[in-house]
Amino acid sequence: MKTITINMMALLLFTATTFSQEKLTNMSDNFMLVIHGGAGTILKKNMTDEKEKLYRDKLNEALQAGHKILKEGGTAVDAVEATINLMENSPLFNAGKGSVFTNAGTNEMDASIMDGKTLNAGAVAGVKTIKNPISAARIVMEKSPHVMLSGDGADQYAKEMGVETASPDYFKDSIRYRQWLKLKETEKQQLDHDATEPKGNDGIPEEGNNIDPSEIEFNINIDEKYGTVGCVALDRHGNLAAGTSTGGMTNKRWGRIGDSPVIAAGTYANNKTCAVSCTGHGEYFIRNVVAYDISAHMEYKSIGVDEAAKQVIHKKLNELGGTGGVIVLDAQGNFTMQFNTAGMYRGYMKANGESEVMLYKGND
Amino acid sequence: MKTITINMMALLLFTATTFSQEKLTNMSDNFMLVIHGGAGTILKKNMTDEKEKLYRDKLNEALQAGHKILKEGGTAVDAVEATINLMENSPLFNAGKGSVFTNAGTNEMDASIMDGKTLNAGAVAGVKTIKNPISAARIVMEKSPHVMLSGDGADQYAKEMGVETASPDYFKDSIRYRQWLKLKETEKQQLDHDATEPKGNDGIPEEGNNIDPSEIEFNINIDEKYGTVGCVALDRHGNLAAGTSTGGMTNKRWGRIGDSPVIAAGTYANNKTCAVSCTGHGEYFIRNVVAYDISAHMEYKSIGVDEAAKQVIHKKLNELGGTGGVIVLDAQGNFTMQFNTAGMYRGYMKANGESEVMLYKGND
Repeated sequence: MKTITINMMALLLFTATTFSQEKLTNMSDNFMLVIHGGAGTILKKNMTDEKEKLYRDKLNEALQAGHKILKEGGTAVDAVEATINLMENSPLFNAGKGSVFTNAGTNEMDASIMDGKTLNAGAVAGVKTIKNPISAARIVMEKSPHVMLSGDGADQYAKEMGVETASPDYFKDSIRYRQWLKLKETEKQQLDHDATEPKGNDGIPEEGNNIDPSEIEFNINIDEKYGTVGCVALDRHGNLAAGTSTGGMTNKRWGRIGDSPVIAAGTYANNKTCAVSCTGHGEYFIRNVVAYDISAHMEYKSIGVDEAAKQVIHKKLNELGGTGGVIVLDAQGNFTMQFNTAGMYRGYMKANGESEVMLYKGND
Repeated sequence: MKTITINMMALLLFTATTFSQEKLTNMSDNFMLVIHGGAGTILKKNMTDEKEKLYRDKLNEALQAGHKILKEGGTAVDAVEATINLMENSPLFNAGKGSVFTNAGTNEMDASIMDGKTLNAGAVAGVKTIKNPISAARIVMEKSPHVMLSGDGADQYAKEMGVETASPDYFKDSIRYRQWLKLKETEKQQLDHDATEPKGNDGIPEEGNNIDPSEIEFNINIDEKYGTVGCVALDRHGNLAAGTSTGGMTNKRWGRIGDSPVIAAGTYANNKTCAVSCTGHGEYFIRNVVAYDISAHMEYKSIGVDEAAKQVIHKKLNELGGTGGVIVLDAQGNFTMQFNTAGMYRGYMKANGESEVMLYKGND
């Protein structure tokens, strides 16, 4: 009886393995992952080797996490969620843990995700208790009849659906909190002269030594806007997905919603064209409909990802005075990473494992 | 002294009149206004003459209000705001007074506006105490560095900026309240079988006599989604604007945001292409990026408003299963009103005063 059981199990295991291998064999060998961790005034001169290494290591770790899922036949949506989760869990980025503070001293996070196969989409705006806002966005996409939920209602829905929560304290990164306190002190004066055209950077580490990930000093301007994380993926089934997650703008108030949770502005995916995730001065990305406009350029003007992204970022966004960047990927695995800021945390990993992580202009 | 004062005043008045006339003479004679009051299962057989007259009269009144502003040289943004204000103040539509109830028994309203000249835009989502949400959206557009504000913060900002408030009771129209109570009673059963693909109509008056505007009986389905109001305008300066205002979905919860306050989904305006206001099943309008997609069709495929709107509504929206309608106007005054529902409250008024108001398919 015992022998039979073992043989049965071996047979089942063999069958499962064969099936799994066959399944993978039937899939395309072409898959691809591209990520960003925010665009802004990211300059080599403001970096130390240690800080740079922290960012490069985390971006590589995120790429590897998503790549593994895609390699094993997981969906683009799975890869996007897992990759973003990893960046959300790091205090290096302005998303999930490490999110910037609102004017009220809270952390209010936004995220959205879109499935290029079905054009289904989900988004949350202003959640306060969800550990990984991108996972809440995915639940909205897959389990609710809605696309966009906001405020306490979004927290409540995600919690009811079993998305992991975290106490407000979890998000209260000491560095970000000190940033915010500094900002609050000078609020009036600085808002007075810079209320309509706020400029910002990306929470860039200053020079310093003995760096610990939890104790990086960030050098931020009054209206820090950047630091969003995003991911676009092409899976072995030939499907695209895109996702974006952010803590929004430092010291934001009035329930301000930026482009990250807005489908077509911050995130868009369509197998026919491309998957896009944006980062930058959200208001300009909404007004320019940046993510969808890249897709529209490809669909209606029959141009590729690179030319489409350049048209939208370096021409249309520039004309309006907006700053930021995008990652774009098509269903053949062609991709581009465009930005009109000094730098953008970004990277890609191809099916064969070839990967690159970059921070500055050029290929560095 | 008195004589001199009177003469001075007469001179000033004369100068002002001359200047005003000269200013108007220098302006284009071409201006145009198009409105909608929601799309849905609006059928002649469900109407009485009295109810139909109420809708036609209110739509005509709204058209005249906007037309007057445009004729006198006001901006498209002015006309859009005033026209929508008039519909928001009427309980006939699901916007401002007459907004449907949320699951919590509150009224939470959304609106957005966009200026086709500057591509500036403003939106509020989930406001509870603003008498005219479109006016709050305009303040966000013109006075804040943001595009989209939400929840209590949006109420607070609008209030601080002097936008007229109203107590929650003001919005609590007895008809809408009774609708909601009816819906609440049957909630569980009906949400169970209709959670992912809710269908709805437009709060259509049932047959009946002795109709008073404040006592119309509405016949609604479980997931009423429609009833939004919108306006697009071309002014004598050659500028376009678009605006949309809504109470959202009956019995909505979790801070659900539809397409109305989402730039590119529910509202878009660009002098280069067109001004668009949408109404319908919001989630599909977000996923299809309906408003901006019509503009993109025009810009990148060099087709007119009519063909562009038909492509997006009758082809792309239909393919995804979405229902609703749009009004679209270009900078030459060409316009179209397209919908894939049984009917749409709609109308237009040309510069020469020629106007038409329609409710059903065809020209009726």
